[in-house]
Amino acid sequence: MDKANRGNFFEDFSVGQTFRHATPKTLSNGDQALYTALYGSRFAINQSEEFAKAVGFAKAPLDDLLVFHVVFGKTVADISLNAIANLGYADCRFLKPVFAGDTLCAESEIIGLKENSDGKSGTVYVRSKGVNQRGETVLDYARWVMVRKKQHGAASKHAQAPRLPEAVEPGGLGGGCPSINAKAWDGTLAGSSHRHQDYQTGERIDHIDGVTVEEAEHMMATRLYHNTARVHFNALEEKRGRFGRRIVYGGHVMSIARALSFNGIANGFHIAAINGGRHLAPLFAGGTVYAWSQIKDTRRLEGRDDVGALRIVTTATRDLPAGEYPTRAPTGDGPGVILELDYWVLMPL
Amino acid sequence: MDKANRGNFFEDFSVGQTFRHATPKTLSNGDQALYTALYGSRFAINQSEEFAKAVGFAKAPLDDLLVFHVVFGKTVADISLNAIANLGYADCRFLKPVFAGDTLCAESEIIGLKENSDGKSGTVYVRSKGVNQRGETVLDYARWVMVRKKQHGAASKHAQAPRLPEAVEPGGLGGGCPSINAKAWDGTLAGSSHRHQDYQTGERIDHIDGVTVEEAEHMMATRLYHNTARVHFNALEEKRGRFGRRIVYGGHVMSIARALSFNGIANGFHIAAINGGRHLAPLFAGGTVYAWSQIKDTRRLEGRDDVGALRIVTTATRDLPAGEYPTRAPTGDGPGVILELDYWVLMPL
Amino acid sequence: MDKANRGNFFEDFSVGQTFRHATPKTLSNGDQALYTALYGSRFAINQSEEFAKAVGFAKAPLDDLLVFHVVFGKTVADISLNAIANLGYADCRFLKPVFAGDTLCAESEIIGLKENSDGKSGTVYVRSKGVNQRGETVLDYARWVMVRKKQHGAASKHAQAPRLPEAVEPGGLGGGCPSINAKAWDGTLAGSSHRHQDYQTGERIDHIDGVTVEEAEHMMATRLYHNTARVHFNALEEKRGRFGRRIVYGGHVMSIARALSFNGIANGFHIAAINGGRHLAPLFAGGTVYAWSQIKDTRRLEGRDDVGALRIVTTATRDLPAGEYPTRAPTGDGPGVILELDYWVLMPL
Repeated sequence: MDKANRGNFFEDFSVGQTFRHATPKTLSNGDQALYTALYGSRFAINQSEEFAKAVGFAKAPLDDLLVFHVVFGKTVADISLNAIANLGYADCRFLKPVFAGDTLCAESEIIGLKENSDGKSGTVYVRSKGVNQRGETVLDYARWVMVRKKQHGAASKHAQAPRLPEAVEPGGLGGGCPSINAKAWDGTLAGSSHRHQDYQTGERIDHIDGVTVEEAEHMMATRLYHNTARVHFNALEEKRGRFGRRIVYGGHVMSIARALSFNGIANGFHIAAINGGRHLAPLFAGGTVYAWSQIKDTRRLEGRDDVGALRIVTTATRDLPAGEYPTRAPTGDGPGVILELDYWVLMPL
Repeated sequence: MDKANRGNFFEDFSVGQTFRHATPKTLSNGDQALYTALYGSRFAINQSEEFAKAVGFAKAPLDDLLVFHVVFGKTVADISLNAIANLGYADCRFLKPVFAGDTLCAESEIIGLKENSDGKSGTVYVRSKGVNQRGETVLDYARWVMVRKKQHGAASKHAQAPRLPEAVEPGGLGGGCPSINAKAWDGTLAGSSHRHQDYQTGERIDHIDGVTVEEAEHMMATRLYHNTARVHFNALEEKRGRFGRRIVYGGHVMSIARALSFNGIANGFHIAAINGGRHLAPLFAGGTVYAWSQIKDTRRLEGRDDVGALRIVTTATRDLPAGEYPTRAPTGDGPGVILELDYWVLMPL
Repeated sequence: MDKANRGNFFEDFSVGQTFRHATPKTLSNGDQALYTALYGSRFAINQSEEFAKAVGFAKAPLDDLLVFHVVFGKTVADISLNAIANLGYADCRFLKPVFAGDTLCAESEIIGLKENSDGKSGTVYVRSKGVNQRGETVLDYARWVMVRKKQHGAASKHAQAPRLPEAVEPGGLGGGCPSINAKAWDGTLAGSSHRHQDYQTGERIDHIDGVTVEEAEHMMATRLYHNTARVHFNALEEKRGRFGRRIVYGGHVMSIARALSFNGIANGFHIAAINGGRHLAPLFAGGTVYAWSQIKDTRRLEGRDDVGALRIVTTATRDLPAGEYPTRAPTGDGPGVILELDYWVLMPL
């Protein structure tokens, strides 16, 4: 009788299987303060109740990626405790704003399974969502992750990889954003005079700054999200692992990159959707993260004359200033790209 | 005229002496968020307002050990600034839940003194309690601590060691826990389907995970608790000290072990009492903490058909996976047991 | 078209130029909890709602230096991103208490410019203020900072250094402090029985304790304040910099010194003004900070019989216990003085 959870292995999953994950979490101003201290996030709607109310929010919403990490974190104990690698995200939509005081639960459904040819592991495709205390879905996304088999060569399941969109259609964006009073939008306080129409497809922006990551920081962040993946916390075991040390949670890199992107995209106040995310190489404590962005598309939203959408690919690098817009992943411990994050942000017109 | 506090020495104490400690502290969601980030605590009643209310709490109570550390921390400046070692705890009862917004004060009484034969130090026995803004005692416990004498060989006091119970009687447990609606207890959200009747005396549970501790983490925790014991903060002075480096506050280890114990005892939502705690060896930053637990007793509480009590001994180790249930303390820097914590938790029937 | 901010250079400033800085910030109990965890601040009015209300505050005010750092932090992106050194502060007055829930904005005016003779840099004199959501100025101060020129030898401006007071006149102090019920002031809970009349001009107090600083701590603090000065965050770039490593934000040292000063000046509950601050040497992670204080003046405030003012110079050292009241700055990596902070605190009569 084993009461401790050792996590599910590849052969434990079946398509259509559903999970309600532990532990529900009420988010508070304390979570937001920690998020700010960990990443230096400066987007005005998340930092100032006054600014948020002036432009049309009921109150200051929490940072979108804080919400993402809290929902993601809950799925780990059921889905990815025996993961080898988190392979990708798709079709991630932020559907409702989340405020301090809201309580989030996470639910998942297995939408695909594909065994690897070596018989030792397979890819699990899962759709997860975050649900608030009123039963409203605030976040919905798919991810796929390579998970170990308990028994090598265990009987293979029918291979089934789901069809996932290359990008979220901009038509459906904006549920997480109330009607914005663009005239009340104070660009000086928000940190930029550049609005939606000032960005061009193809434009590249070096976010300039670099930030060195410490073990205490990424572990505090990852625990705040209830993410229990072992590779982030146990230096003794990881010494014998693939990289010889703790690996920083990939979402920590996403949040660093998003915070750095403020310097150049300060008015991109809301992540409406994540089209895809690729972790090209791991990050370790002591590494310095830089970021640059490219505008991949710029769209008006049907029926809205307050905000438009920018599709952005933000590239985060390790130990490499981003001024020359590098695109190659590092080899070994070398400098290079660690993350490509493809997402839609909303910006006042 | 020396206005700075250098702390009391053994000869400064007398039996019956009382203290009202500085500084009162209003606990907030910010304290709880930090506690979660520092330990990864996932017990549902502390994390979710919705869950807590559904089962019978007025709102989400703060983690019990956060309350313990805040009360303990206040006693340090008066009791143990000149301590050589914290020897033990006994008869620690959690009497009322504590919520964000409550303000805690701490008070102590010296209940025993026993000089050591070398004339250089002695054991101080002290009973401390935490009191909320309504004057209600929320926590009451005894501890004993070895304290330096200012003058070696200073006149000895009458030796007087108090009688303390080996364990808290289960009859008196549960004041800190309202009537729980066990039917509304959602084990899936709470993280376990195992309830009180599923645990057997003698049963052992490996909590599996290990977590490596950083200097920034234990110092932030210890300062949050207003604990000013110098060995935790001053690397320059500790370089010349017994261990050559800063020592992690023993309560930090208790909280790590409690958080790890979620994996196997997720429904043990409330610490009703601590029977005893022994710090068998110190922990230093860089060390990796594991934990395992043994069920020492299982009891029904008179007049309550909502929750039962489990007496648990949780053993925390340093740099040693707990799967083989080790019981030996480390020698030197080696791996081994650093904490044995004997306590009662409440769990839904 | 460069949308990322590379900061202003010396030749970009002109006297009379004004700035409204990004990003407004609503302060919360979460910010206060982090502040307590980072410094161990124990002043009773900031820590306890009950204590604050009993003595006359509407509720517990936030730590004064938290307010200072939040206002200072906002000015960095516009004023000092290309700073070589922060040279000094003057005439800093705390005019209104700030509470959790208040939103602060920062505004600045350039009040002087003085080119250096080498043609490579110059001193920028700036007056900044923090303004709350009701438009009330809560903090007002001047600082001067040496800023790089973009083009060496660029055309010189008219040299103009403003006249700044050597110290804030005690007559104008106290706007940030309501009428205090000195009889309700519980010295035991506050941590000291020493009141205003117990301190003498010339008196020196060793604050005894030392605290070693970690990279994760000073970076989390500095990000919490929205301070983006690069020298604090980027180890890769600083490896090639003046000191070979990240430099701790000078305000972090101020807050450590203030927290240490509790041990000896516990009733000095409110910083009413900062007369001047000099950072004599940088601090790096791994350094241990100590502090001592000298009472420079003691004054009654006209029309107030509740509190008096103490002018204090607190000296912070690096790797040097403060018991011998050192005054010399370190050479190279050696021990010595890193900060002299000259300020007025209020204390009950």
